[in-house]
Amino acid sequence: MSSRDDVRSLAIAELGSFHVGGREATLTGLAPRELRLTPAAPVLEVDPNGEFEVEQMYVQFVRLASPRAPYPLLMWHGGGMSGVAWETTPDGRPGWQELFLRYGHDVYVSDAVERGRASWARFPEVFATEPFFRSKQEAWEGFRIGPTWAKDPSERVAHTDSQFPVDSFDQFAKQLVPRWATNDGCTQAAYDQLVQRVGPCVLLAHSQGGVFALRAAAAAPGLVKAVILIEPGGAPDPDLEDISAIRDIPLLRVWGDHIDGNELWSGLRRSCERYTAAHIGQGGVADSIDLPAEGINGNSHLLMMDRNSDGVGAMVQQWLERQGLAAPFRG
Amino acid sequence: MSSRDDVRSLAIAELGSFHVGGREATLTGLAPRELRLTPAAPVLEVDPNGEFEVEQMYVQFVRLASPRAPYPLLMWHGGGMSGVAWETTPDGRPGWQELFLRYGHDVYVSDAVERGRASWARFPEVFATEPFFRSKQEAWEGFRIGPTWAKDPSERVAHTDSQFPVDSFDQFAKQLVPRWATNDGCTQAAYDQLVQRVGPCVLLAHSQGGVFALRAAAAAPGLVKAVILIEPGGAPDPDLEDISAIRDIPLLRVWGDHIDGNELWSGLRRSCERYTAAHIGQGGVADSIDLPAEGINGNSHLLMMDRNSDGVGAMVQQWLERQGLAAPFRG
Repeated sequence: MSSRDDVRSLAIAELGSFHVGGREATLTGLAPRELRLTPAAPVLEVDPNGEFEVEQMYVQFVRLASPRAPYPLLMWHGGGMSGVAWETTPDGRPGWQELFLRYGHDVYVSDAVERGRASWARFPEVFATEPFFRSKQEAWEGFRIGPTWAKDPSERVAHTDSQFPVDSFDQFAKQLVPRWATNDGCTQAAYDQLVQRVGPCVLLAHSQGGVFALRAAAAAPGLVKAVILIEPGGAPDPDLEDISAIRDIPLLRVWGDHIDGNELWSGLRRSCERYTAAHIGQGGVADSIDLPAEGINGNSHLLMMDRNSDGVGAMVQQWLERQGLAAPFRG
Repeated sequence: MSSRDDVRSLAIAELGSFHVGGREATLTGLAPRELRLTPAAPVLEVDPNGEFEVEQMYVQFVRLASPRAPYPLLMWHGGGMSGVAWETTPDGRPGWQELFLRYGHDVYVSDAVERGRASWARFPEVFATEPFFRSKQEAWEGFRIGPTWAKDPSERVAHTDSQFPVDSFDQFAKQLVPRWATNDGCTQAAYDQLVQRVGPCVLLAHSQGGVFALRAAAAAPGLVKAVILIEPGGAPDPDLEDISAIRDIPLLRVWGDHIDGNELWSGLRRSCERYTAAHIGQGGVADSIDLPAEGINGNSHLLMMDRNSDGVGAMVQQWLERQGLAAPFRG
């Protein structure tokens, strides 16, 4: 009826989703619970025991009619977040999911075990501990949006050069999800199964997802064609883990601003630099885009949501082109 | 690189997501928690207090380059489920999201408050109670897949005519998410805000989503152009709630098989029939598709996942065409 002919359309063959990984858990011996569905309803007795599917992850795919990249791009989110991070920026611009579809990649966006549509399981019966909820202050400061948090938006202090869409911070905070500290094993197992299911692919991982991506690459070096680390939350210790399997896998890491002087992020960057130095030492390719060093200032930890997210994405795409993992953009 | 020219492609203008509804909650006075990120890591002290965004819902949209339906279709899931229900069937066929995109509708798939990518909040500090986890037995029996549950798949008894892809039941169970019994108010508020944000629209709701959809229609009768109830989980009591606002809104309800003799579903159907009788009594349109009465046997509660999901979807589309809310399918 209406027409959007002014918008360049994407030709999509298929979109859908699946869950991968996980196991069946059986709960027994739990006392019945009383459930009242509405204040006026009678009390029902509910049995909390039985079989449950747990520790699976969720994967949503969009496959192009005519992809121009040789392998799909798997987008893995960071800690306390879900695949929503890739979909749209908090101020409503297209996210990297759509950007990289337009660049010609099939895109798989996942929610790791315990996050978003992956679902979560009872604790302490299945998940060993209770989860953590990231406060807005922790996100404001930890994601390097600004030095000073305040409940009143007008009193919050962002970095003067911040690229984050600060006026949309509360909208961003709506996408935060609880996280557990004790699910790394089953999360890695599900990511490894995802790579086996998709086959040859490129990994694009943010923050906490970076560690999972490097280990997934080491577990399936024949399938992972490159790993792109967006502000990685550290890396495995190359003195403690054998990284020889990834020797032929090119790595790219991309860093925002205001890391110097930030104890947490300086430490995580050092951890990552030790890993990439070891990879270069074994003859591997490990490139770095340090945005401030290139004269691009003010990026937060959330590069894919910052106001210059399209520009940062274009730099990632150019690197993929140089690796032979993307076709030049035809516009 | 590869080509999928054998697949008819969808021309999409934009895909993305947003959160709507919710509020800021402030937690104070909670004791610090100890966090150990790995068994070998030092113990960190974490402050669980602060500001949090809570009670929002998540909405994912796919907008066509040239929609052929006059209004977007909003797909609302049922209890203990998320928007995943609409994406793909458990045995990997395209879901109703893609089906209705191919029919020419812009489609908005949401995760209600507390589910999936909507995130969830601490209990009892924000959500008043603890959640319920639906066991696989409860899903097998309650969703009318079959009379007898067993942990061993080979010992489970499905209805002999079941249309559900029974071999993929465990895959289906991976998409179940916890639910609360005490969040109906904020959930309805978020759905109402979604309708205001999208504007004129058609609601397609499964199970528990049906009650939210009928109340959303009554709250915004100028915006909701039709309500399609897929196996609705009951309806408001027309003796207790004024339904005059929806007089001009056509309703369709679609029922699967094996409801007769099932106490829960017979009761929910009676509740819905009382509502639709009152709607017809006020001059409204309320059509019904009772699949067994049309000679289509064996459908479960999960019509959009059953093996004949495309056929059931086509019947919904034909009804929309008769209401002037869809263009004839051009294939």
